[in-house]
Amino acid sequence: MEHANNRYENIAQLYRTNGQRTEHDLLGDKAIPDTAYYGIQTLRALENFDISGISLNFYPSFIRGLAGVKKAAALANHELDNLSDSTTHAICQACDEISMGMLHNHFIVDMIQGGAGTSTNMNANEVIANRALEILGHQRGEYQFCSPNNHVNCSQSTNDAYPTAIKIALLEANDELLQEVDNLIEYIDEKADEFSDVLKMGRTQLQDAVPMTLGQSFQAFATSLRNEAERLKTCSVPFLTVNLGGTAIGTGLNAEPAYREKVIPHLCNITGRNIVLADDLIEATHDTGSLVMYSSALKQLAVKLSKICNDLRLLSSGPRAGLNEINLPAMQPGSSIMPGKVNPVIPEVVNQIAYKVIGNDLTITMAAEAGQLELNVMEPVMVESLFESIEILKNGMNTLGVRCIQGITANREVCSANIRNSIGVVTALNPYLGYEVCTRIAKEALESASSVYDLVLEKRLLTKEQLDSALAPENMVG
Amino acid sequence: MEHANNRYENIAQLYRTNGQRTEHDLLGDKAIPDTAYYGIQTLRALENFDISGISLNFYPSFIRGLAGVKKAAALANHELDNLSDSTTHAICQACDEISMGMLHNHFIVDMIQGGAGTSTNMNANEVIANRALEILGHQRGEYQFCSPNNHVNCSQSTNDAYPTAIKIALLEANDELLQEVDNLIEYIDEKADEFSDVLKMGRTQLQDAVPMTLGQSFQAFATSLRNEAERLKTCSVPFLTVNLGGTAIGTGLNAEPAYREKVIPHLCNITGRNIVLADDLIEATHDTGSLVMYSSALKQLAVKLSKICNDLRLLSSGPRAGLNEINLPAMQPGSSIMPGKVNPVIPEVVNQIAYKVIGNDLTITMAAEAGQLELNVMEPVMVESLFESIEILKNGMNTLGVRCIQGITANREVCSANIRNSIGVVTALNPYLGYEVCTRIAKEALESASSVYDLVLEKRLLTKEQLDSALAPENMVG
Amino acid sequence: MEHANNRYENIAQLYRTNGQRTEHDLLGDKAIPDTAYYGIQTLRALENFDISGISLNFYPSFIRGLAGVKKAAALANHELDNLSDSTTHAICQACDEISMGMLHNHFIVDMIQGGAGTSTNMNANEVIANRALEILGHQRGEYQFCSPNNHVNCSQSTNDAYPTAIKIALLEANDELLQEVDNLIEYIDEKADEFSDVLKMGRTQLQDAVPMTLGQSFQAFATSLRNEAERLKTCSVPFLTVNLGGTAIGTGLNAEPAYREKVIPHLCNITGRNIVLADDLIEATHDTGSLVMYSSALKQLAVKLSKICNDLRLLSSGPRAGLNEINLPAMQPGSSIMPGKVNPVIPEVVNQIAYKVIGNDLTITMAAEAGQLELNVMEPVMVESLFESIEILKNGMNTLGVRCIQGITANREVCSANIRNSIGVVTALNPYLGYEVCTRIAKEALESASSVYDLVLEKRLLTKEQLDSALAPENMVG
Amino acid sequence: MEHANNRYENIAQLYRTNGQRTEHDLLGDKAIPDTAYYGIQTLRALENFDISGISLNFYPSFIRGLAGVKKAAALANHELDNLSDSTTHAICQACDEISMGMLHNHFIVDMIQGGAGTSTNMNANEVIANRALEILGHQRGEYQFCSPNNHVNCSQSTNDAYPTAIKIALLEANDELLQEVDNLIEYIDEKADEFSDVLKMGRTQLQDAVPMTLGQSFQAFATSLRNEAERLKTCSVPFLTVNLGGTAIGTGLNAEPAYREKVIPHLCNITGRNIVLADDLIEATHDTGSLVMYSSALKQLAVKLSKICNDLRLLSSGPRAGLNEINLPAMQPGSSIMPGKVNPVIPEVVNQIAYKVIGNDLTITMAAEAGQLELNVMEPVMVESLFESIEILKNGMNTLGVRCIQGITANREVCSANIRNSIGVVTALNPYLGYEVCTRIAKEALESASSVYDLVLEKRLLTKEQLDSALAPENMVG
Repeated sequence: MEHANNRYENIAQLYRTNGQRTEHDLLGDKAIPDTAYYGIQTLRALENFDISGISLNFYPSFIRGLAGVKKAAALANHELDNLSDSTTHAICQACDEISMGMLHNHFIVDMIQGGAGTSTNMNANEVIANRALEILGHQRGEYQFCSPNNHVNCSQSTNDAYPTAIKIALLEANDELLQEVDNLIEYIDEKADEFSDVLKMGRTQLQDAVPMTLGQSFQAFATSLRNEAERLKTCSVPFLTVNLGGTAIGTGLNAEPAYREKVIPHLCNITGRNIVLADDLIEATHDTGSLVMYSSALKQLAVKLSKICNDLRLLSSGPRAGLNEINLPAMQPGSSIMPGKVNPVIPEVVNQIAYKVIGNDLTITMAAEAGQLELNVMEPVMVESLFESIEILKNGMNTLGVRCIQGITANREVCSANIRNSIGVVTALNPYLGYEVCTRIAKEALESASSVYDLVLEKRLLTKEQLDSALAPENMVG
Repeated sequence: MEHANNRYENIAQLYRTNGQRTEHDLLGDKAIPDTAYYGIQTLRALENFDISGISLNFYPSFIRGLAGVKKAAALANHELDNLSDSTTHAICQACDEISMGMLHNHFIVDMIQGGAGTSTNMNANEVIANRALEILGHQRGEYQFCSPNNHVNCSQSTNDAYPTAIKIALLEANDELLQEVDNLIEYIDEKADEFSDVLKMGRTQLQDAVPMTLGQSFQAFATSLRNEAERLKTCSVPFLTVNLGGTAIGTGLNAEPAYREKVIPHLCNITGRNIVLADDLIEATHDTGSLVMYSSALKQLAVKLSKICNDLRLLSSGPRAGLNEINLPAMQPGSSIMPGKVNPVIPEVVNQIAYKVIGNDLTITMAAEAGQLELNVMEPVMVESLFESIEILKNGMNTLGVRCIQGITANREVCSANIRNSIGVVTALNPYLGYEVCTRIAKEALESASSVYDLVLEKRLLTKEQLDSALAPENMVG
Repeated sequence: MEHANNRYENIAQLYRTNGQRTEHDLLGDKAIPDTAYYGIQTLRALENFDISGISLNFYPSFIRGLAGVKKAAALANHELDNLSDSTTHAICQACDEISMGMLHNHFIVDMIQGGAGTSTNMNANEVIANRALEILGHQRGEYQFCSPNNHVNCSQSTNDAYPTAIKIALLEANDELLQEVDNLIEYIDEKADEFSDVLKMGRTQLQDAVPMTLGQSFQAFATSLRNEAERLKTCSVPFLTVNLGGTAIGTGLNAEPAYREKVIPHLCNITGRNIVLADDLIEATHDTGSLVMYSSALKQLAVKLSKICNDLRLLSSGPRAGLNEINLPAMQPGSSIMPGKVNPVIPEVVNQIAYKVIGNDLTITMAAEAGQLELNVMEPVMVESLFESIEILKNGMNTLGVRCIQGITANREVCSANIRNSIGVVTALNPYLGYEVCTRIAKEALESASSVYDLVLEKRLLTKEQLDSALAPENMVG
Repeated sequence: MEHANNRYENIAQLYRTNGQRTEHDLLGDKAIPDTAYYGIQTLRALENFDISGISLNFYPSFIRGLAGVKKAAALANHELDNLSDSTTHAICQACDEISMGMLHNHFIVDMIQGGAGTSTNMNANEVIANRALEILGHQRGEYQFCSPNNHVNCSQSTNDAYPTAIKIALLEANDELLQEVDNLIEYIDEKADEFSDVLKMGRTQLQDAVPMTLGQSFQAFATSLRNEAERLKTCSVPFLTVNLGGTAIGTGLNAEPAYREKVIPHLCNITGRNIVLADDLIEATHDTGSLVMYSSALKQLAVKLSKICNDLRLLSSGPRAGLNEINLPAMQPGSSIMPGKVNPVIPEVVNQIAYKVIGNDLTITMAAEAGQLELNVMEPVMVESLFESIEILKNGMNTLGVRCIQGITANREVCSANIRNSIGVVTALNPYLGYEVCTRIAKEALESASSVYDLVLEKRLLTKEQLDSALAPENMVG
């Protein structure tokens, strides 16, 4: 390494002037604000990718993921004598500071970027190198002492460091998401309990069907979300399998064979997770299947939330000309013109979150399909879309639980009147009268605006005792 | 041509045995059933593409489009002395027979196929060549007299003949689709008229808003569909611009410059449409923008139909525990277990058609995005998806009009009771009392289960005359 | 039951005339061809849903799923004395005959249908009832002896029988799909082995990167598909959890509590699978999460296949002006105008299959999101889309393996020349010369059209021995 | 109005303390920072919708659209004596200040919100009212003098003001977008011109086809984009048709009939556009068809850009083991590990933008489909997605033109060598030798690694003169 470093000094003479330092790369020189921890490649990326206005630091867990990978690599390189004690220590300290959020405002590259994540990786490499230089008593930009490429990126390529950081970040983000799912389930469970004795008509195809309890409706919401929590867990497991050590295309070029065995345990320590190395590093380098499948799970969660919100909006429709079985808490005046109108604004925003997540899932699918040969260069937009989806789902579920579910009340009288008036209860008489006779009763009830109960008695098809027992709602709801 | 034909005889000696003839191509020999009008390339395609079970003849308008292009080309080639009188006549007669549906069962290649439509084009070329051979008094397979490539495909490539045939077929299919849109609008207009005096509550965000008429609801359905009819017309206009004459990649190689000027007028004659040649034939050869945009219009139509069907299902929900403002005609018993249940099965099937069309639009988008360099090889799945979407939309709209809309009846009493009970009518008092006072009235009405009318009188905010005039529904519905 | 049956006779007097029998339902009478095993409700559905042209019998595994559920129900009802010995026997025999494919042409309802599957369930109920009647010595239509609703559908609702049948059918279909994945993997593995010593340049972002073997490329394809096979298995596990016994909305109305415990073991026996009952039957009745997630897995498989096919098309591009590293077997002449052209038609058709599957996934997502309250009425289009996707994926993978992969050959000379000429090999010198020096070498090599090897020697940066060792491709490919 | 205002004072006594004022609405009191121009409803919305982190002021054209509508309404209300001279003047001045960007940081509601835009509309109403109060010499919050609802929102509902503002904003955004399309076309046109004499092989299905010029390739890119510019224009025309005056659900309740006729001309003046009123205001109130279709046009543009970028990446692949026909300008070092590697980072980021836009189109489609009855409550997410798509498309096209297209150079030698070596030129001999003879030549050339030219001479199929003329590339490229 010394050999190369000696030569290095001849190549790029760092000079400073007017609060700027000049850095050098393949394409030439460029002035960097001396206050910046990032360097020339980050600056080029900043100029090249003025796209979405959303920069890396919008998603802190992603930056922590990058810092974790860089620290693990430094420790492994240290063990292999690729890095000195002091350089290793400085790099690790820089990574720790980043993990604590101290340098996030130097992660400035746009989330949507070309280059397959190289700009993100170099942004991390440069910030870490410059902060390490300071710690080592050097000035920022004196890369001969600690270089973004030779030291911080040692034994790595963007092709392995970047996807590994993504996966670590997503594991953390998924934990946060699951916490919100759990919180929401808790709010719903409380309502399921509270409404366990509220009898109401079930509906299939929006038509009156047979009785159930309102508690069962909410219990079903909770069950649905419990299933999704499981699915999210299952679909995040593949994030534990990384390709760190595969370097450029997965062949491990430039990383000693022992490196892989050393870096993974460090990554486990740093993250507190059971990270393992992929068997087929070539495949692991270009494959984005775990991102696509996790996005599918996010989409599923979105679909479920949307269904729940559609139901809440339906059941609370009215107040006078709708189903009006439940009341959502009023969160804001509903109209700039219609006084007193209160709208289901919280479910409405969650529906919209769901559509955005479903759209993002398509973005991710298309980006995955566009992978070619040894790399999928479209990973940045997948990452951006995943983090966006997680973020708005978290916010949406918190909002839904706190600002809607927990304040829901039941209109018990409406619910029970619906059962009393219903024709669907005739279903309970099938075992006594057969489908065909019941069909005739139903038809007559509808046409004559009379009740099933009265008709059956009137026609002496069953005794009052039989009928009362058969139609007792509590017998019907399972 | 004679020169080449002489040599041809030395290359592929046609021989027959056991009801089969042997044909020859680049890859070698193959036995063809002698009853088949198609030839060796169709047979290879049949073997290569056993994919969807849906063959070309599932969509007759597509086959007619192919025949139209081949006939136009033959007539132009005849003018340019590329084809003799007798051959031209035979090819044209074969094309006419195909247009009349006489040989459709020989168009057997799977709609989803590789090869950018070459198999479809060759299936047409072979069927036409063999039928022409018969007409000329030769046997099928005696391609020295009329060859699929040299004669039927003369001055053409799949790259121009295939997309031109697609566009002609889509123009025809769009006409059929528009007819179904118009029919559906007519059914809806009748209902708009019938229900023009049915006052009911309008709803925003599923919450009671202000009064309107049921006729206005149906009128809005009709307006929506009228807009879509216009959009379909607009989006089909680009189908009139074709690339016939561009041959292989749009440079026109192998087609005399005069050919283009001659073939387009023939195509206009045959189709009765105002077909024009694209300005940039290179672009026109690989671009599928007109297919994508037309698919967008189909998707739009699907979205509108889905919205209409959602509304119909909502408004007819009940019969006892729903909105119950309208009745859909009963089309079949609704349940295998719940006697007398009748479901909105027709809107339900149309919703599903919409989802399928929206899915197909994504298929088409992805196929369009996958075009590379001088050709989009993914056109066959675009064609399959477009024709499928058109077909199910046509069937769905016919079903919706005939089996649902025309039998809808209004529950006038429910509709007017909803207005009487509503709080939303307080909106009409804004100009008299201001938004804030009206808000208090609305709130009190809801909490006390009383009516706006009574409250305003009770509080002496307006005189009875003022109130009656302000709240007269007919004054409120515009 | 007898009580009801006595009444039944008064309701619908079956009469026959001119090869037709008349059946009766809620909506009135209808003539049925006497040759038909299906009955009045199937006929109504046939008339109501003339949509896609694809009827139930297009997917035999679905019909077998229905027969399995009906048989299990009959056996459980028999145990509970809901059905007599002879009726049970007749129903079971009818179900067995259906499973063997003997009555498939009586399953005629369109796959895309309204009514949440009621028409499918009734088609099964009616075919089974009428065949059972024959077995019992009665005539078709004499439903007083064995009724589609009271006997065949006993203790069931469409809401539980239909989704259970779907899941059983999908388990079978998934097995078939996995078989095709395995076959394809085998073909790929053979090539990975055959090409294990073919050194070639790896590419990231379509730019030359570092060396690898062609075998590694194919191994990565196989790994990718192995992962998908695992995912399909994981995502099909939820199909083992059914809601049979939940009847109408999951409350189990009309089914004795003991029924659930009895019917599930029968279903296990019949299917040979470890079926279990869902914990929350309300949720299980309306939730379609397992369908959506399984569709996500199909989509994933499609994305992987599309990526593989994109790579095959890229690597075989040429033959003269492309990458030309591999040759795909020629399957058909590639052009109607360009002689000798051979195109990658098999990967091309697989790409298109992938787009169709991805489109279907969207259809399924939208249908899932549209579920309301106690039922998802959009299940039929989900089923249609799932079976279509499975079918075309199966066909596509078989085609890909047999007609493409197994005939692929490598252009070894092209592959190794690419390495010799490459600049990317300079990466292997990083550990010796550092990133910056290597950058200068790379730049000079590119600009001077010279080789990295010559430049390094010329500049005496390394000895020949060092260089030969560092650049030995076998050292570079891991 | 006075009448109501007198009452108003009794309702909400504004009081101030500690730099805060207290405002009142349907749900009670709330403290507002006295520095805020927004009021209580904005604050509630801020609390309710903590979703995406993207607030209204992220898209200034949207805020300008809102200000334009409010000003037009104020002027019309003034003409109808609904507003005094001074109030009108103050409101108009506030709107003008907003249009100039002076109050954008008070537009703080999240772009993704429930309530169908009511919070956006109220944010505008409140900021305008409070700024107008200042102008009038009152304090913020003294709404008795100028109320967000009674004055600023006079004769309006969110249901008409909000979609009208959206359309006006989109017209402006579309103009900006078209400017970027035009700029990009200009860059491409220059290259088409520069490369008009660069002969190269055209490719279909990634296989060598027949010759063309590189200029033709770029010309086709430009043509494609020109078509999209036209489509964007066509698809933005419906934005000129608004529903302002329809108020709550389109019936126009609370707005005098004359209001419509007065407000539209003001809107024309303010925007400088030819705005017209929709014929069917009920439909126009809930329909979002114009948004969906415009999104389709954005999606189309995205598809085209993605195709262009895919081609650029393909044609510049290499530099040694790829097609290498063109060079993209180097924008940044391509790799953290591979020295000297330069990647096509600009096309790559544009591809990703395309996927995001396509995903957004799905979000918009789903939101459109979710519209119910008299309103589509999902409009906010449609707006957010449209503005995001426009923004990233604008940025992407600018980046593509400036940082990629304009620096592209051609590798003329590579291009012409590809033609010399090609087999595809045999196509030009079809008219002389026939398809079958040419097929044999092509096959022999490929198998013997010889050239078509040599083979034809060797076999004496044509004279050298004939051959030279037939194969002259300039004769082949049209």
